Amino acid sequence: MRGGIDLGGTKIQAVVVDAAGEVLGETRVPTPRDGGPPGVAAAMGEAVEQAAGQAGVAPGDLEGVGVGSPGVVDDKAGTVASAGNLPDWEEPYPLRDVLAKDVGTKVRLGNDVQVATDAEFELGSAKPYDSILGVFWGTGVGGGIVLDGRPWIGRSAAGEIGHVVVRIGGRQCTCGRRGCMEAYAGRLAMELRARQLMEEKGHQTKLFEIMEERGRERLTSGVWARALKAEDKMAKKLLREAIEALGAGVASTLNILDVEAVVIGGGMGVRLGEPYAERIREAMMPHLFADSNPPAVHVAALGDLGGAIGASLLVKQSDK
Amino acid sequence: MRGGIDLGGTKIQAVVVDAAGEVLGETRVPTPRDGGPPGVAAAMGEAVEQAAGQAGVAPGDLEGVGVGSPGVVDDKAGTVASAGNLPDWEEPYPLRDVLAKDVGTKVRLGNDVQVATDAEFELGSAKPYDSILGVFWGTGVGGGIVLDGRPWIGRSAAGEIGHVVVRIGGRQCTCGRRGCMEAYAGRLAMELRARQLMEEKGHQTKLFEIMEERGRERLTSGVWARALKAEDKMAKKLLREAIEALGAGVASTLNILDVEAVVIGGGMGVRLGEPYAERIREAMMPHLFADSNPPAVHVAALGDLGGAIGASLLVKQSDK
Repeated sequence: MRGGIDLGGTKIQAVVVDAAGEVLGETRVPTPRDGGPPGVAAAMGEAVEQAAGQAGVAPGDLEGVGVGSPGVVDDKAGTVASAGNLPDWEEPYPLRDVLAKDVGTKVRLGNDVQVATDAEFELGSAKPYDSILGVFWGTGVGGGIVLDGRPWIGRSAAGEIGHVVVRIGGRQCTCGRRGCMEAYAGRLAMELRARQLMEEKGHQTKLFEIMEERGRERLTSGVWARALKAEDKMAKKLLREAIEALGAGVASTLNILDVEAVVIGGGMGVRLGEPYAERIREAMMPHLFADSNPPAVHVAALGDLGGAIGASLLVKQSDK
Repeated sequence: MRGGIDLGGTKIQAVVVDAAGEVLGETRVPTPRDGGPPGVAAAMGEAVEQAAGQAGVAPGDLEGVGVGSPGVVDDKAGTVASAGNLPDWEEPYPLRDVLAKDVGTKVRLGNDVQVATDAEFELGSAKPYDSILGVFWGTGVGGGIVLDGRPWIGRSAAGEIGHVVVRIGGRQCTCGRRGCMEAYAGRLAMELRARQLMEEKGHQTKLFEIMEERGRERLTSGVWARALKAEDKMAKKLLREAIEALGAGVASTLNILDVEAVVIGGGMGVRLGEPYAERIREAMMPHLFADSNPPAVHVAALGDLGGAIGASLLVKQSDK
């Protein structure tokens, strides 16, 4: 049995899987906002313990635990740095060794988006294809690339589709740059925009009421889904802008890569599902150069667990 | 000896090279605007004959002739289709066999941008790198991709960086779409814009006077260079817009690919040279995600002949 952790800006998900990738235990905990990297690492350890308990084993009995992490991941050094969506996580933090000591088994680190893409490629909706683009629409917008069966990570920073420019001089992104796709489509950017429209321009919205009713501190994908269901005008408007940006940004990426298929995952992508994947596809078509031969567009088949399942593949890969 | 032809929207360039890629003969003729594909094919045959004559051989004595062509190139079928920048060239035209009959040796077809990228990769300024992006800034803006030493062409349409969206809802591109990088930076789009500013808005420019003085029918790269030297206000403004678009579009492409180096070629890229490559680099930096580790930026070392030299490599490759 192997463990896998998807470390996200909003939540930490852990799974325990068997040799075939079947999920035997799973858990999710909110990403702590206080305590910095050590606090996050401790929460990761607890999540693994819970998932292992469900699977009827102790964490130390696992073959290993893989971690899909945001930021700059250095598996050799065992560190994660510059994880912008995580609290106070700029300097390299020795996550591998801290977590390995906590859980009592070996730990492997990988890029969150790349492991989720690998999971869809090996076990999910991209199984029939050789070349794919994974679009992970959540707190930010990440991209994972597989070309001719091999992950393409460039010099380590490939696939940053969230920072493809969709509007020169456009909206400021949470990364500080202007006009990035993520400035319109990232859930964090959408929340900031919603607050701004409400507080500075007096626009009405049920988004923050729903957030409080659900006991959340942030506009989670579930909050957005409920607000859309309630026909909230601001939620609909911000989703329209997000989809317009995703359409242009994903089409730009396809004009460069011309892969066979796009897999849409991430918290927003999975929660909003097929109807929104179809809207992204429609928004993409007017910008797609090879529009007589568009790629297939699928929702991530492993759903919300793809990141954690993909992280567990890191343990398998490191044994090869 | 091998022949190579670079088939462009403005001109046809032919070279004859020796086994090491040294140029023994070269010529250029304007791309005929009348006569459709057969007229263009005839001009290509004449260009090869002239270049071969300079090298002291008959075209039929060449080992073969490679052609770097725009549009949809099918080397197996021997056809070129949808070459938007060439006159009346929509349907597949059997260029390989028509030209082979004319020149009396075998002909190989390749994508213009990809062969020019391969030339820079094998013989030019990208020799030190394994992964590169070629940016060919001319009538349009084309992109060639080499990843880990291998060309990446996707399902055949990869590298269409000219149609990366830089401004949702922005200027109409000559491809019909909106907001493409090429709508601001392609020489043809720039010419259309210059004419529109002059005719519809009464703006002043020396661009078309210079064009006539030089006996040109279009705003060639040389015309733009002269107008810039003469401090023509409209030329400077349109170049500023082009560079802004190139900066955003190239940075977007790098955010996806994270390659080691960018090579800037094409008629405009080569004619305007280092100072403008530096301006593109500066315009790219604010949008580059991995800005602490930017790629190298070089002007194409083979200059204007890179496309034709790269085309000649097709003959060599087909012998492998």
